[in-house]
Amino acid sequence: MESGACVAATPRALPYYVAFSQLLGLTVVAVTGAWLGLYRGGIAWESALKFNVHPLCMVIGLIFLQGDALLVYRVFRNEPKRTTKVLHGLLHVFAFIIALVGLVAVFDYHRTKGYADLYSLHSWCGILVFILYVAQWLVGFSFFLFPGASFSLRSRYRPQHVFFGAFIFLFSVGTALLGLKEALLFQLGTKYSTFVPEGVLANMLGLLLACFGLVVLYILTQAEWKRPPQAEEQALSMDFKTLTEADSPSSQ
Amino acid sequence: MESGACVAATPRALPYYVAFSQLLGLTVVAVTGAWLGLYRGGIAWESALKFNVHPLCMVIGLIFLQGDALLVYRVFRNEPKRTTKVLHGLLHVFAFIIALVGLVAVFDYHRTKGYADLYSLHSWCGILVFILYVAQWLVGFSFFLFPGASFSLRSRYRPQHVFFGAFIFLFSVGTALLGLKEALLFQLGTKYSTFVPEGVLANMLGLLLACFGLVVLYILTQAEWKRPPQAEEQALSMDFKTLTEADSPSSQ
Repeated sequence: MESGACVAATPRALPYYVAFSQLLGLTVVAVTGAWLGLYRGGIAWESALKFNVHPLCMVIGLIFLQGDALLVYRVFRNEPKRTTKVLHGLLHVFAFIIALVGLVAVFDYHRTKGYADLYSLHSWCGILVFILYVAQWLVGFSFFLFPGASFSLRSRYRPQHVFFGAFIFLFSVGTALLGLKEALLFQLGTKYSTFVPEGVLANMLGLLLACFGLVVLYILTQAEWKRPPQAEEQALSMDFKTLTEADSPSSQ
Repeated sequence: MESGACVAATPRALPYYVAFSQLLGLTVVAVTGAWLGLYRGGIAWESALKFNVHPLCMVIGLIFLQGDALLVYRVFRNEPKRTTKVLHGLLHVFAFIIALVGLVAVFDYHRTKGYADLYSLHSWCGILVFILYVAQWLVGFSFFLFPGASFSLRSRYRPQHVFFGAFIFLFSVGTALLGLKEALLFQLGTKYSTFVPEGVLANMLGLLLACFGLVVLYILTQAEWKRPPQAEEQALSMDFKTLTEADSPSSQ
Protein backbone atom coordinates (compact mmCIF):
# COMPACT_ATOMS: atom_id res chain seq x y z
CA MET A 1 0.00 0.00 0.00
CA GLU A 2 1.37 3.41 -0.98
CA SER A 3 1.48 5.60 2.13
CA GLY A 4 0.82 8.67 -0.04
CA ALA A 5 -2.51 7.20 -1.07
CA CYS A 6 -4.23 7.86 2.25
CA VAL A 7 -3.07 11.48 2.78
CA ALA A 8 -6.22 13.58 3.21
CA ALA A 9 -6.23 17.29 2.41
CA THR A 10 -6.07 19.63 5.42
CA PRO A 11 -9.16 21.91 5.65
CA ARG A 12 -8.25 25.34 4.28
CA ALA A 13 -8.95 27.51 7.36
CA LEU A 14 -7.73 25.06 10.03
CA PRO A 15 -3.98 26.00 9.96
CA TYR A 16 -4.86 29.69 10.51
CA TYR A 17 -7.03 28.88 13.52
CA VAL A 18 -4.33 26.58 14.95
CA ALA A 19 -1.67 29.26 14.42
CA PHE A 20 -3.93 31.82 16.12
CA SER A 21 -4.51 29.45 19.07
CA GLN A 22 -0.74 29.01 19.48
CA LEU A 23 -0.16 32.76 19.29
CA LEU A 24 -2.85 33.26 21.95
CA GLY A 25 -1.48 30.44 24.15
CA LEU A 26 2.07 31.81 24.01
CA THR A 27 0.76 35.33 24.70
CA VAL A 28 -1.07 34.01 27.77
CA VAL A 29 2.17 32.41 29.06
CA ALA A 30 4.18 35.57 28.26
CA VAL A 31 1.66 37.92 29.94
CA THR A 32 1.57 35.66 33.02
CA GLY A 33 5.39 35.88 33.13
CA ALA A 34 5.27 39.64 32.62
CA TRP A 35 2.68 40.08 35.40
CA LEU A 36 4.75 38.01 37.86
CA GLY A 37 8.00 39.69 36.78
CA LEU A 38 6.77 43.28 36.76
CA TYR A 39 4.47 43.31 39.79
CA ARG A 40 5.27 40.25 41.92
CA GLY A 41 9.10 40.27 42.07
CA GLY A 42 9.67 37.38 39.66
CA ILE A 43 10.09 33.69 40.38
CA ALA A 44 12.30 31.66 42.75
CA TRP A 45 11.95 28.32 44.53
CA GLU A 46 13.73 29.23 47.78
CA SER A 47 11.93 32.33 49.05
CA ALA A 48 8.48 33.90 49.35
CA LEU A 49 8.64 34.13 45.54
CA LYS A 50 7.90 30.41 45.51
CA PHE A 51 4.21 31.32 45.37
CA ASN A 52 4.79 32.77 41.87
CA VAL A 53 5.82 29.32 40.61
CA HIS A 54 2.16 28.31 41.08
CA PRO A 55 0.41 30.56 38.53
CA LEU A 56 3.19 30.19 35.93
CA CYS A 57 3.25 26.36 36.13
CA MET A 58 -0.54 26.13 36.06
CA VAL A 59 -0.82 28.39 33.01
CA ILE A 60 1.93 26.47 31.14
CA GLY A 61 0.70 23.00 32.20
CA LEU A 62 -3.05 23.05 32.67
CA ILE A 63 -3.86 25.79 30.14
CA PHE A 64 -1.32 25.88 27.30
CA LEU A 65 -0.11 22.26 27.21
CA GLN A 66 -3.50 20.79 28.07
CA GLY A 67 -5.07 22.86 25.26
CA ASP A 68 -2.38 21.74 22.81
CA ALA A 69 -2.83 18.10 23.81
CA LEU A 70 -6.51 18.40 22.81
CA LEU A 71 -5.53 19.86 19.42
CA VAL A 72 -3.11 17.02 18.53
CA TYR A 73 -5.75 15.07 16.56
CA ARG A 74 -6.64 18.17 14.53
CA VAL A 75 -3.01 19.07 13.75
CA PHE A 76 -1.48 15.64 13.03
CA ARG A 77 -3.97 14.44 10.47
CA ASN A 78 -1.87 12.08 8.37
CA GLU A 79 0.49 10.52 10.90
CA PRO A 80 -0.31 6.98 12.08
CA LYS A 81 -3.11 7.02 14.69
CA ARG A 82 -0.90 5.35 17.30
CA THR A 83 1.82 8.05 17.02
CA THR A 84 -0.82 10.76 17.45
CA LYS A 85 -2.31 8.94 20.48
CA VAL A 86 1.11 8.62 22.13
CA LEU A 87 1.81 12.33 21.52
CA HIS A 88 -1.64 13.21 23.00
CA GLY A 89 -0.92 11.08 26.08
CA LEU A 90 2.66 12.43 26.46
CA LEU A 91 1.61 16.08 26.23
CA HIS A 92 -0.88 15.39 29.03
CA VAL A 93 1.94 13.77 31.08
CA PHE A 94 4.12 16.88 30.62
CA ALA A 95 1.16 19.09 31.53
CA PHE A 96 0.54 16.97 34.63
CA ILE A 97 4.20 17.12 35.79
CA ILE A 98 4.37 20.89 35.36
CA ALA A 99 1.03 21.32 37.16
CA LEU A 100 2.27 19.06 39.96
CA VAL A 101 5.27 21.38 40.48
CA GLY A 102 2.82 24.30 40.60
CA LEU A 103 0.70 22.45 43.17
CA VAL A 104 3.70 21.60 45.38
CA ALA A 105 4.83 25.24 45.19
CA VAL A 106 1.58 26.63 46.58
CA PHE A 107 1.24 24.03 49.37
CA ASP A 108 4.91 24.64 50.36
CA TYR A 109 4.33 28.40 50.32
CA HIS A 110 1.22 28.06 52.51
CA ARG A 111 3.13 25.83 54.98
CA THR A 112 6.08 28.22 55.36
CA LYS A 113 3.71 31.17 55.78
CA GLY A 114 1.36 29.25 58.10
CA TYR A 115 -1.65 29.86 55.83
CA ALA A 116 -4.62 27.50 55.74
CA ASP A 117 -4.98 25.15 52.75
CA LEU A 118 -7.99 24.45 50.57
CA TYR A 119 -10.46 26.95 51.98
CA SER A 120 -11.20 28.99 48.84
CA LEU A 121 -13.42 28.30 45.83
CA HIS A 122 -10.30 28.49 43.63
CA SER A 123 -8.60 25.75 45.67
CA TRP A 124 -11.71 23.52 45.69
CA CYS A 125 -12.07 23.87 41.92
CA GLY A 126 -8.31 23.38 41.45
CA ILE A 127 -8.17 20.13 43.44
CA LEU A 128 -11.25 18.87 41.60
CA VAL A 129 -9.65 19.70 38.21
CA PHE A 130 -6.49 17.88 39.27
CA ILE A 131 -8.35 14.73 40.37
CA LEU A 132 -10.53 14.74 37.22
CA TYR A 133 -7.42 15.28 35.06
CA VAL A 134 -5.60 12.27 36.53
CA ALA A 135 -8.75 10.09 36.39
CA GLN A 136 -9.40 11.05 32.76
CA TRP A 137 -5.78 10.25 31.85
CA LEU A 138 -5.87 6.84 33.55
CA VAL A 139 -9.21 5.86 32.01
CA GLY A 140 -8.07 7.17 28.60
CA PHE A 141 -4.81 5.20 28.85
CA SER A 142 -6.53 1.96 29.83
CA PHE A 143 -9.07 2.27 27.00
CA PHE A 144 -6.96 3.60 24.14
CA LEU A 145 -3.28 2.78 24.72
CA PHE A 146 -3.40 -0.37 26.84
CA PRO A 147 -4.12 -3.15 24.36
CA GLY A 148 -6.98 -4.77 26.29
CA ALA A 149 -10.08 -2.77 25.29
CA SER A 150 -12.16 -4.00 22.38
CA PHE A 151 -12.96 -1.84 19.37
CA SER A 152 -16.64 -1.53 20.31
CA LEU A 153 -15.77 -0.53 23.89
CA ARG A 154 -13.38 2.15 22.54
CA SER A 155 -16.03 3.45 20.15
CA ARG A 156 -18.56 3.74 22.93
CA TYR A 157 -16.16 5.48 25.34
CA ARG A 158 -14.58 7.86 22.77
CA PRO A 159 -17.34 10.55 22.76
CA GLN A 160 -17.36 10.56 26.60
CA HIS A 161 -13.56 10.95 26.66
CA VAL A 162 -13.76 13.87 24.23
CA PHE A 163 -16.62 15.56 26.14
CA PHE A 164 -15.01 15.26 29.57
CA GLY A 165 -11.60 16.24 28.15
CA ALA A 166 -13.09 19.47 26.80
CA PHE A 167 -14.94 20.08 30.07
CA ILE A 168 -11.82 19.54 32.22
CA PHE A 169 -9.93 21.97 29.96
CA LEU A 170 -12.65 24.64 30.29
CA PHE A 171 -12.89 24.03 34.03
CA SER A 172 -9.10 24.57 34.20
CA VAL A 173 -9.51 27.92 32.43
CA GLY A 174 -12.30 28.89 34.87
CA THR A 175 -10.15 27.86 37.84
CA ALA A 176 -7.25 29.96 36.51
CA LEU A 177 -9.57 32.99 36.30
CA LEU A 178 -10.64 32.43 39.93
CA GLY A 179 -6.99 32.18 41.01
CA LEU A 180 -6.05 35.34 39.12
CA LYS A 181 -8.93 37.21 40.75
CA GLU A 182 -7.91 35.93 44.20
CA ALA A 183 -4.29 37.03 43.68
CA LEU A 184 -5.48 40.49 42.59
CA LEU A 185 -7.86 41.05 45.50
CA PHE A 186 -5.35 39.79 48.10
CA GLN A 187 -2.56 42.02 46.78
CA LEU A 188 -4.34 45.12 45.50
CA GLY A 189 -7.32 45.36 47.86
CA THR A 190 -9.17 48.64 47.32
CA LYS A 191 -6.41 49.90 44.97
CA TYR A 192 -7.92 47.49 42.37
CA SER A 193 -10.81 49.93 41.87
CA THR A 194 -8.44 52.79 40.93
CA PHE A 195 -7.41 51.07 37.67
CA VAL A 196 -3.79 50.50 38.77
CA PRO A 197 -1.63 49.07 35.93
CA GLU A 198 -1.36 45.62 37.58
CA GLY A 199 -5.14 45.31 37.76
CA VAL A 200 -5.63 46.31 34.12
CA LEU A 201 -2.85 43.93 32.94
CA ALA A 202 -4.27 41.05 34.98
CA ASN A 203 -7.82 41.72 33.69
CA MET A 204 -6.46 41.55 30.15
CA LEU A 205 -4.69 38.30 31.05
CA GLY A 206 -8.07 36.97 32.24
CA LEU A 207 -9.73 37.85 28.92
CA LEU A 208 -6.81 36.29 27.00
CA LEU A 209 -7.25 33.07 29.02
CA ALA A 210 -10.96 33.01 28.14
CA CYS A 211 -10.12 33.66 24.45
CA PHE A 212 -7.63 30.77 24.41
CA GLY A 213 -10.37 28.52 25.82
CA LEU A 214 -12.80 29.77 23.16
CA VAL A 215 -10.43 29.22 20.22
CA VAL A 216 -9.36 25.70 21.35
CA LEU A 217 -13.02 24.75 21.87
CA TYR A 218 -13.94 26.17 18.45
CA ILE A 219 -11.25 24.13 16.67
CA LEU A 220 -12.29 20.98 18.58
CA THR A 221 -16.01 21.26 17.82
CA GLN A 222 -15.92 21.93 14.05
CA ALA A 223 -17.23 18.67 12.58
CA GLU A 224 -15.41 19.07 9.27
CA TRP A 225 -12.07 19.62 11.03
CA LYS A 226 -12.11 16.23 12.78
CA ARG A 227 -9.24 13.90 11.91
CA PRO A 228 -10.30 11.68 8.99
CA PRO A 229 -10.00 7.92 9.58
CA GLN A 230 -7.06 6.58 7.57
CA ALA A 231 -7.07 3.63 5.17
CA GLU A 232 -5.09 1.49 7.64
CA GLU A 233 -7.45 2.36 10.51
CA GLN A 234 -10.54 1.73 8.43
CA ALA A 235 -9.20 -1.68 7.44
CA LEU A 236 -8.25 -2.36 11.06
CA SER A 237 -11.59 -1.19 12.41
CA MET A 238 -13.38 -3.39 9.89
CA ASP A 239 -11.33 -6.37 11.13
CA PHE A 240 -12.11 -5.47 14.73
CA LYS A 241 -15.76 -4.94 13.90
CA THR A 242 -16.00 -8.33 12.22
CA LEU A 243 -14.24 -9.94 15.18
CA THR A 244 -16.45 -8.19 17.72
CA GLU A 245 -19.62 -8.96 15.85
CA ALA A 246 -18.56 -12.58 15.42
CA ASP A 247 -17.97 -12.68 19.20
CA SER A 248 -21.43 -11.43 19.96
CA PRO A 249 -24.13 -14.09 20.36
CA SER A 250 -26.75 -11.78 18.79
CA SER A 251 -25.03 -11.52 15.37
CA GLN A 252 -26.42 -13.33 12.37
CA MET B 1 -51.29 13.64 7.15
CA GLU B 2 -51.77 12.08 10.58
CA SER B 3 -49.92 14.20 13.13
CA GLY B 4 -49.22 11.05 15.18
CA ALA B 5 -47.19 9.64 12.32
CA CYS B 6 -44.20 11.94 12.87
CA VAL B 7 -43.86 11.57 16.65
CA ALA B 8 -40.33 10.31 17.33
CA ALA B 9 -39.51 8.33 20.47
CA THR B 10 -37.70 10.28 23.22
CA PRO B 11 -34.27 8.78 24.05
CA ARG B 12 -34.56 6.67 27.21
CA ALA B 13 -32.02 8.46 29.46
CA LEU B 14 -32.74 12.04 28.30
CA PRO B 15 -35.69 12.80 30.66
CA TYR B 16 -33.58 11.79 33.69
CA TYR B 17 -30.73 14.08 32.67
CA VAL B 18 -33.16 16.94 32.00
CA ALA B 19 -34.85 16.38 35.40
CA PHE B 20 -31.43 16.35 37.07
CA SER B 21 -30.45 19.59 35.30
CA GLN B 22 -33.66 21.26 36.55
CA LEU B 23 -33.08 20.02 40.09
CA LEU B 24 -29.53 21.39 39.94
CA GLY B 25 -30.66 24.71 38.43
CA LEU B 26 -33.35 25.23 41.07
CA THR B 27 -30.87 24.25 43.80
CA VAL B 28 -28.45 26.87 42.47
CA VAL B 29 -31.19 29.54 42.63
CA ALA B 30 -32.27 28.40 46.13
CA VAL B 31 -28.71 28.31 47.50
CA THR B 32 -28.06 31.80 46.05
CA GLY B 33 -31.22 33.00 47.84
CA ALA B 34 -30.18 31.23 51.06
CA TRP B 35 -26.68 32.76 50.92
CA LEU B 36 -28.08 36.29 50.41
CA GLY B 37 -30.80 35.77 53.03
CA LEU B 38 -28.66 34.16 55.73
CA TYR B 39 -25.43 36.13 55.38
CA ARG B 40 -26.17 39.30 53.41
CA GLY B 41 -29.37 40.60 55.01
CA GLY B 42 -31.77 39.62 52.23
CA ILE B 43 -32.95 41.62 49.24
CA ALA B 44 -34.50 45.08 48.82
CA TRP B 45 -34.49 47.69 46.06
CA GLU B 46 -34.43 50.84 48.23
CA SER B 47 -31.41 50.36 50.50
CA ALA B 48 -27.82 49.03 50.54
CA LEU B 49 -29.47 45.62 50.06
CA LYS B 50 -29.98 46.63 46.43
CA PHE B 51 -26.60 45.06 45.70
CA ASN B 52 -28.07 41.65 46.53
CA VAL B 53 -30.53 41.98 43.65
CA HIS B 54 -27.51 41.64 41.34
CA PRO B 55 -26.34 38.06 42.12
CA LEU B 56 -29.92 36.74 42.42
CA CYS B 57 -31.06 38.21 39.08
CA MET B 58 -27.90 37.07 37.30
CA VAL B 59 -28.24 33.51 38.60
CA ILE B 60 -31.95 33.33 37.66
CA GLY B 61 -31.52 35.05 34.28
CA LEU B 62 -28.07 34.31 32.85
CA ILE B 63 -27.58 30.90 34.48
CA PHE B 64 -30.91 29.09 35.06
CA LEU B 65 -33.09 30.61 32.30
CA GLN B 66 -30.26 30.82 29.76
CA GLY B 67 -29.42 27.15 30.41
CA ASP B 68 -33.08 26.16 30.05
CA ALA B 69 -33.40 28.15 26.80
CA LEU B 70 -30.56 26.03 25.37
CA LEU B 71 -32.36 22.82 26.40
CA VAL B 72 -35.66 23.72 24.70
CA TYR B 73 -34.79 21.81 21.49
CA ARG B 74 -33.91 18.69 23.50
CA VAL B 75 -37.09 18.79 25.63
CA PHE B 76 -39.74 19.77 23.05
CA ARG B 77 -39.01 17.12 20.47
CA ASN B 78 -42.39 16.71 18.81
CA GLU B 79 -43.87 20.19 18.88
CA PRO B 80 -43.77 22.19 15.63
CA LYS B 81 -40.30 23.66 15.04
CA ARG B 82 -41.64 27.23 14.96
CA THR B 83 -43.26 26.89 18.43
CA THR B 84 -39.98 25.57 19.85
CA LYS B 85 -38.02 28.41 18.21
CA VAL B 86 -40.38 31.04 19.66
CA LEU B 87 -40.08 29.46 23.13
CA HIS B 88 -36.27 29.43 22.81
CA GLY B 89 -36.26 33.11 21.79
CA LEU B 90 -38.76 34.09 24.52
CA LEU B 91 -36.85 32.34 27.31
CA HIS B 92 -33.78 34.30 26.23
CA VAL B 93 -35.84 37.53 26.34
CA PHE B 94 -36.96 36.74 29.91
CA ALA B 95 -33.36 35.91 30.84
CA PHE B 96 -32.22 39.20 29.31
CA ILE B 97 -34.84 41.30 31.16
CA ILE B 98 -34.01 39.71 34.52
CA ALA B 99 -30.27 40.15 33.87
CA LEU B 100 -30.87 43.79 32.93
CA VAL B 101 -32.54 44.38 36.32
CA GLY B 102 -29.48 42.77 37.94
CA LEU B 103 -27.18 45.01 35.93
CA VAL B 104 -29.11 48.19 36.84
CA ALA B 105 -29.04 47.14 40.52
CA VAL B 106 -25.25 46.91 40.68
CA PHE B 107 -24.63 50.16 38.76
CA ASP B 108 -27.18 51.97 41.01
CA TYR B 109 -25.55 50.50 44.12
CA HIS B 110 -22.09 51.61 42.96
CA ARG B 111 -23.41 55.14 42.25
CA THR B 112 -25.06 55.59 45.66
CA LYS B 113 -21.93 54.24 47.41
CA GLY B 114 -19.54 56.25 45.20
CA TYR B 115 -17.72 53.09 44.05
CA ALA B 116 -15.91 52.88 40.71
CA ASP B 117 -17.54 50.90 37.89
CA LEU B 118 -16.08 48.28 35.59
CA TYR B 119 -12.60 47.93 37.08
CA SER B 120 -12.63 44.23 37.98
CA LEU B 121 -12.16 41.09 35.87
CA HIS B 122 -15.70 40.04 36.88
CA SER B 123 -17.15 43.28 35.54
CA TRP B 124 -15.14 43.10 32.29
CA CYS B 125 -16.29 39.51 31.72
CA GLY B 126 -19.85 40.41 32.72
CA ILE B 127 -20.15 43.32 30.27
CA LEU B 128 -18.64 41.17 27.53
CA VAL B 129 -21.15 38.35 28.26
CA PHE B 130 -24.00 40.87 28.16
CA ILE B 131 -22.90 42.34 24.79
CA LEU B 132 -22.33 38.87 23.29
CA TYR B 133 -25.72 37.70 24.62
CA VAL B 134 -27.60 40.59 22.98
CA ALA B 135 -25.62 40.24 19.72
CA GLN B 136 -26.26 36.47 19.59
CA TRP B 137 -29.99 37.03 20.19
CA LEU B 138 -30.26 39.68 17.45
CA VAL B 139 -28.31 37.63 14.90
CA GLY B 140 -30.28 34.49 15.85
CA PHE B 141 -33.59 36.36 15.49
CA SER B 142 -32.69 37.80 12.09
CA PHE B 143 -31.59 34.39 10.77
CA PHE B 144 -34.17 32.05 12.27
CA LEU B 145 -37.34 33.99 13.15
CA PHE B 146 -37.30 36.88 10.72
CA PRO B 147 -38.57 35.40 7.44
CA GLY B 148 -35.80 36.77 5.22
CA ALA B 149 -32.95 34.27 5.54
CA SER B 150 -32.74 31.43 3.02
CA PHE B 151 -32.60 27.78 4.03
CA SER B 152 -28.95 27.40 2.98
CA LEU B 153 -27.94 30.53 4.92
CA ARG B 154 -29.74 29.16 8.02
CA SER B 155 -28.03 25.77 7.64
CA ARG B 156 -24.62 27.38 7.41
CA TYR B 157 -25.18 29.69 10.40
CA ARG B 158 -26.88 27.08 12.66
CA PRO B 159 -23.66 25.32 13.93
CA GLN B 160 -22.08 28.72 14.68
CA HIS B 161 -25.20 29.81 16.60
CA VAL B 162 -25.13 26.60 18.66
CA PHE B 163 -21.39 26.85 19.36
CA PHE B 164 -21.45 30.51 20.41
CA GLY B 165 -24.65 29.96 22.42
CA ALA B 166 -22.95 27.22 24.41
CA PHE B 167 -19.82 29.35 24.83
CA ILE B 168 -21.79 32.40 26.05
CA PHE B 169 -23.60 30.17 28.56
CA LEU B 170 -20.32 28.71 29.88
CA PHE B 171 -18.75 32.19 29.96
CA SER B 172 -21.79 33.31 32.04
CA VAL B 173 -21.13 30.48 34.52
CA GLY B 174 -17.43 31.48 34.72
CA THR B 175 -18.38 35.13 35.26
CA ALA B 176 -20.78 34.12 38.06
CA LEU B 177 -17.95 32.20 39.77
CA LEU B 178 -15.72 35.31 39.54
CA GLY B 179 -18.47 37.47 41.03
CA LEU B 180 -19.09 35.01 43.86
CA LYS B 181 -15.38 34.93 44.65
CA GLU B 182 -15.24 38.75 44.61
CA ALA B 183 -18.23 39.03 46.98
CA LEU B 184 -16.59 36.54 49.36
CA LEU B 185 -13.18 38.21 49.44
CA PHE B 186 -14.66 41.72 49.86
CA GLN B 187 -16.90 40.66 52.74
CA LEU B 188 -14.96 37.92 54.52
CA GLY B 189 -11.35 39.03 53.96
CA THR B 190 -9.00 36.87 56.03
CA LYS B 191 -11.96 35.22 57.81
CA TYR B 192 -12.45 33.26 54.56
CA SER B 193 -9.44 31.09 55.44
CA THR B 194 -10.98 30.01 58.77
CA PHE B 195 -13.73 28.01 57.01
CA VAL B 196 -16.56 30.29 58.20
CA PRO B 197 -20.02 28.90 57.25
CA GLU B 198 -20.62 31.61 54.62
CA GLY B 199 -17.40 30.72 52.84
CA VAL B 200 -18.18 26.99 52.81
CA LEU B 201 -21.76 27.60 51.59
CA ALA B 202 -20.58 29.95 48.85
CA ASN B 203 -17.86 27.48 47.73
CA MET B 204 -20.55 24.80 47.46
CA LEU B 205 -22.67 27.25 45.45
CA GLY B 206 -19.68 27.72 43.14
CA LEU B 207 -19.36 23.96 42.58
CA LEU B 208 -23.13 23.66 42.01
CA LEU B 209 -22.90 26.41 39.37
CA ALA B 210 -20.10 24.51 37.61
CA CYS B 211 -22.14 21.26 37.81
CA PHE B 212 -25.18 22.96 36.25
CA GLY B 213 -22.92 24.14 33.39
CA LEU B 214 -21.54 20.61 32.99
CA VAL B 215 -24.96 18.89 32.89
CA VAL B 216 -26.49 21.40 30.42
CA LEU B 217 -23.42 21.07 28.18
CA TYR B 218 -23.61 17.26 28.39
CA ILE B 219 -27.26 17.19 27.33
CA LEU B 220 -26.55 19.63 24.47
CA THR B 221 -23.59 17.71 23.05
CA GLN B 222 -25.01 14.16 22.94
CA ALA B 223 -25.46 13.57 19.21
CA GLU B 224 -28.28 11.03 19.65
CA TRP B 225 -30.25 13.43 21.88
CA LYS B 226 -30.52 16.10 19.18
CA ARG B 227 -34.06 16.99 18.09
CA PRO B 228 -35.01 14.82 15.11
CA PRO B 229 -36.15 16.70 11.99
CA GLN B 230 -39.92 16.28 11.58
CA ALA B 231 -41.78 15.15 8.48
CA GLU B 232 -43.08 18.70 7.85
CA GLU B 233 -39.60 20.20 8.21
CA GLN B 234 -38.01 17.60 5.99
CA ALA B 235 -40.59 18.28 3.29
CA LEU B 236 -40.09 22.03 3.75
CA SER B 237 -36.32 21.77 3.69
CA MET B 238 -36.50 19.72 0.50
CA ASP B 239 -38.61 22.47 -1.06
CA PHE B 240 -36.16 25.12 0.10
CA LYS B 241 -33.22 23.04 -1.07
CA THR B 242 -34.73 22.66 -4.50
CA LEU B 243 -35.47 26.38 -4.62
CA THR B 244 -31.97 27.34 -3.44
CA GLU B 245 -30.27 24.95 -5.81
CA ALA B 246 -32.42 26.16 -8.68
CA ASP B 247 -31.37 29.73 -7.78
CA SER B 248 -27.71 28.92 -7.88
CA PRO B 249 -25.98 29.39 -11.24
CA SER B 250 -23.69 26.40 -10.60
CA SER B 251 -26.50 23.82 -10.34
CA GLN B 252 -27.06 21.33 -13.16
